[in-house]
Amino acid sequence: MYVSFTGCQWGAARYIWGMTETTKDHWVDEASPEAGVREQLVAAAGDHFSKFGYEKTTLADLAKAIGFSKTYFYRFFASKQEIGEAVCSQCLGKILAAIEAEMAGAPSATEKLRRMLRTIPAMSMQLFFEERKLYDIAAVSTRDAWSSSTKYYDRLAERLQSILQQGREVGEFERKTPIDEVTRAILLAITPFADPRVLQHHLDLVPDRSNEVVSLILRSLAP
Amino acid sequence: MYVSFTGCQWGAARYIWGMTETTKDHWVDEASPEAGVREQLVAAAGDHFSKFGYEKTTLADLAKAIGFSKTYFYRFFASKQEIGEAVCSQCLGKILAAIEAEMAGAPSATEKLRRMLRTIPAMSMQLFFEERKLYDIAAVSTRDAWSSSTKYYDRLAERLQSILQQGREVGEFERKTPIDEVTRAILLAITPFADPRVLQHHLDLVPDRSNEVVSLILRSLAP
Repeated sequence: MYVSFTGCQWGAARYIWGMTETTKDHWVDEASPEAGVREQLVAAAGDHFSKFGYEKTTLADLAKAIGFSKTYFYRFFASKQEIGEAVCSQCLGKILAAIEAEMAGAPSATEKLRRMLRTIPAMSMQLFFEERKLYDIAAVSTRDAWSSSTKYYDRLAERLQSILQQGREVGEFERKTPIDEVTRAILLAITPFADPRVLQHHLDLVPDRSNEVVSLILRSLAP
Repeated sequence: MYVSFTGCQWGAARYIWGMTETTKDHWVDEASPEAGVREQLVAAAGDHFSKFGYEKTTLADLAKAIGFSKTYFYRFFASKQEIGEAVCSQCLGKILAAIEAEMAGAPSATEKLRRMLRTIPAMSMQLFFEERKLYDIAAVSTRDAWSSSTKYYDRLAERLQSILQQGREVGEFERKTPIDEVTRAILLAITPFADPRVLQHHLDLVPDRSNEVVSLILRSLAP
């Protein structure tokens, strides 16, 4: 299996900031620029949600757990949803980054597409289910069409369509079907492994069965 | 759109038995053979679940609503789940029957497959969502792998594989990919429209987007 990732790196982030469990109450360097503080709040919130769940956590719980006042939170986020969206964006950004990393150096459009479509289930499973409780925030994000999710799906569609275009130009893929139809149909066909609400029922099917769906998709593109 | 069906025919069944709202307490002909009574109980239970939901209804509620004692129920069903499974089997049986009816007279394996794969979303939507509350029993049935659901999916797989075989024999479909792999991958690719738990998020995508997925699947079978 060529897919290997480093996970939703709360652990790594904690290391970078020199934070330890025993110094939790005061781990944020308040002298850091605002942007840095915001990023740290997002990472700490992700850490908290992954342990206790998003829906059950109030902003007061979150502020207390990471040693900040609610007032201070409101300097950076208008609501719990806003910090939730930031956590999701960070995670979904990792999936997009992993897709690009896996595709780099692929010798053909077919191989790029194969890697892209295999990376989505592998990474989604790792980010949303290995740290199990991130599932609920991912599900809420998809259900309520948060901008974190819609931007992610837009970006997937855009990337997919550009690979299809490349493959069409060099004669690897058929050109008769409208490219936007192909893009939509592929994204729907991988729903069982890409939508966290559905993936939860299919965890045991990754990667063997999800790879079979990817192969079906690749066969559908033959010129 | 060639798919047109008559719905989950509680209405029709009620008509056949000459039942009206005003005679509800005594509508079952107790002189009918046991098999007939069982069938009537299943239809009445389906009617009740579609109005009030499966999970919220107790066996006592159900017995009261259709004018039977719990004791009498237990002559036919060991539990609420058993009558639930019978309701599901009846509904899923209607999908299977509709598939066969739609496929009759199709001039090729490709056309049979197209009709089969288009009928599944159309009928599932009609049976589980138009009478909205049947959704919950279908979802429980899939989630808990009731025999009603597993038999249905087995039957779909069997029927699908037999059409693939026919198409392979006459050269309509490619033969390189193992046929069981193709069968599994197709059933997974139509999950967004076949699994009631997932279909609920995609109701607005039937039939336009579901047909695009069917077309993708048909393209994947080209020799």
